[in-house]
Amino acid sequence: MQEAGSVGIVETKYLTFAEPPNEMVLECGRPLGPITLAYETYGELNQAKDNAILIVHALSGDAHAAGYHHPGDKQPGWWDIMIGPGKAFDTRKYFVICCNVIGGCQGSTGPSSINPQTGRPYGLSFPIVTVRDWVNTQKVLIDHLGIEQLLCVAGGSSGGMQVLQWVVSYPDRVRLAIPIATTSKLSAQAIAFNEVGRQAIQSDPNWREGDYYGKMVPRRGLAIARMIGHITYLSERSMHQKFGRKLQDKTVYGYNFLTDFQVESYLRYKGDHFVKRFDANSYLYITKAMDYFDLTQAYGSLEEAFAGVQAKFLVISFSSDWLFPTYQSKEIVSALRRVDAYVIFTEIQTDYGHDAFLLESEQLSSLITNFLSHGWNQKA
Amino acid sequence: MQEAGSVGIVETKYLTFAEPPNEMVLECGRPLGPITLAYETYGELNQAKDNAILIVHALSGDAHAAGYHHPGDKQPGWWDIMIGPGKAFDTRKYFVICCNVIGGCQGSTGPSSINPQTGRPYGLSFPIVTVRDWVNTQKVLIDHLGIEQLLCVAGGSSGGMQVLQWVVSYPDRVRLAIPIATTSKLSAQAIAFNEVGRQAIQSDPNWREGDYYGKMVPRRGLAIARMIGHITYLSERSMHQKFGRKLQDKTVYGYNFLTDFQVESYLRYKGDHFVKRFDANSYLYITKAMDYFDLTQAYGSLEEAFAGVQAKFLVISFSSDWLFPTYQSKEIVSALRRVDAYVIFTEIQTDYGHDAFLLESEQLSSLITNFLSHGWNQKA
Repeated sequence: MQEAGSVGIVETKYLTFAEPPNEMVLECGRPLGPITLAYETYGELNQAKDNAILIVHALSGDAHAAGYHHPGDKQPGWWDIMIGPGKAFDTRKYFVICCNVIGGCQGSTGPSSINPQTGRPYGLSFPIVTVRDWVNTQKVLIDHLGIEQLLCVAGGSSGGMQVLQWVVSYPDRVRLAIPIATTSKLSAQAIAFNEVGRQAIQSDPNWREGDYYGKMVPRRGLAIARMIGHITYLSERSMHQKFGRKLQDKTVYGYNFLTDFQVESYLRYKGDHFVKRFDANSYLYITKAMDYFDLTQAYGSLEEAFAGVQAKFLVISFSSDWLFPTYQSKEIVSALRRVDAYVIFTEIQTDYGHDAFLLESEQLSSLITNFLSHGWNQKA
Repeated sequence: MQEAGSVGIVETKYLTFAEPPNEMVLECGRPLGPITLAYETYGELNQAKDNAILIVHALSGDAHAAGYHHPGDKQPGWWDIMIGPGKAFDTRKYFVICCNVIGGCQGSTGPSSINPQTGRPYGLSFPIVTVRDWVNTQKVLIDHLGIEQLLCVAGGSSGGMQVLQWVVSYPDRVRLAIPIATTSKLSAQAIAFNEVGRQAIQSDPNWREGDYYGKMVPRRGLAIARMIGHITYLSERSMHQKFGRKLQDKTVYGYNFLTDFQVESYLRYKGDHFVKRFDANSYLYITKAMDYFDLTQAYGSLEEAFAGVQAKFLVISFSSDWLFPTYQSKEIVSALRRVDAYVIFTEIQTDYGHDAFLLESEQLSSLITNFLSHGWNQKA
């Protein structure tokens, strides 16, 4: 067996639809159009068009899930450890698709896009989008690619929310579903962290009610939001193991308000780095979509939400994930079992916290490879 | 037995010392003077002066631990549930003292105090203070009150750090020690949350490098810091029970960036409320003191730190406290037992999280009442 490899150089593609006057009506009731989706594909769609896997990304992700954008590119796509020849989402076998969510800032229509009615960036005039809207736009892409039924939809965190919404909204369009480190509804604590992040952005004077394009961007506010997020993605134990109380470039306390500890330096770096690649308004829109996600509220109960599901499920949680704790995955599993869905559930033992869905490649790969093979062979 | 009552109307007193040229040299090596401590006392010091209990406060606390400041005062002191006639710290029996930490903003010398050398508020020219400095200043107050040995030192959170520092710095001056919901060194995660709070304050343009007195204060930044803190003081479960996904003054989502959820409204309220009573620079100084606290680093090991302790200990943690988790209290207990100290340890089962030290009055009272009586009777 050849070693697991890279999909190599890849290109982001774009699909535009919902051109006026045929705008898409969003869950909030407002129309949006035209809508552009940035997406990438890896591997080949087979003749039967039954080997397609949709990967759905989390808050800060994008369409670039695997491979490199140019020969000098040092940073592969965000789930490169999972997607490629010989990897869990094996591109020798499967046709893998990933697209950027609307409201985002990596090529899909969002608050930084030009509002065709004004010729200026939408800013806060962009309508609120929801997980259901994300899935509805993805469905347009899947239709466009001529795929009747996805072999699989998979994703972690708010990607997992999209997986759940897919099987609920389009039950006959998904054979296998892999929701990872996710929930059927965001907890009060997670809403609270999102809200504080939004407050940090909105308190930055450069935010200007979202109308900052072409001017100074609210980088301090966005960096703070990202720092808060980062703490919640790691477990207390992993922070202890990674940083402990180690000092940054010094052997004794500085007795000032500059950086003393490595963990401070790490957070500042992460915050500053994020600002270079992410739009503050998109952070507002995407966290709001997460907050609003609640299958129980939307369908009356989790059982009612899942009543018509046809997919088979591999539900995965991580033992040290305190942002999307295992009990939330178990709620999903219980509800699925009550409607007689086929469900495999695994809690992976790890210290990595919520970020484990981006890091625990070995355990994830073994689980996902088996689950996909099984589903694939049953199809064949 | 009469019902537990209030200490009634109380008055904040002030002690000033370390007048130049006799400044106190702080742990950072810089001198500070004059130093004023704001303090309150409840109950009467007995003739033997052996019934004194020092209560030490946490981040946002102050000298006003019990009673009311005037007849119309609706808000009692921060630990009123624990201090008063018939309460755990029974003022019919004990003389209870509480003083505001230096670096604070409730009457003790801090960054908002006037620097006598310039005639202007210190701002960031105020020296960095540490838990050891806090304890050293408290010792001056105890000496001033003519108390040779404290019957007890008690406090939660960073108050607990002060309790530990007291028994280490002044082993013969403390008979009983009650460190609650605390740690011998702040974790990387807790440092991280503190740092993000500081970043929020320092990113507020009104902060002006700490030189904002008499001008607009950095209220947005401080409010965000407080909101972050509040999330960490509650458990995920208590937030779920208290707020869940309940909406604020609406029955359907607003589909905008105004408040949707009660938990958002609660955090905004808490943030705004805090800003009215707290100084942003003090938030920087006090969180930094917490970050720097590390008995292991300061004394070589926890056993070496505790080698000379003479006090008896009641160590209390809370099962749902994830900011100062039980394992950190257990580390203290283990080290104390290795040096043959007398230790009672209890983990109180509660959903309240870290805030439990301000809320679990019944369980705390029963433990503390017994521990104090025992120590008191042994003395008598």
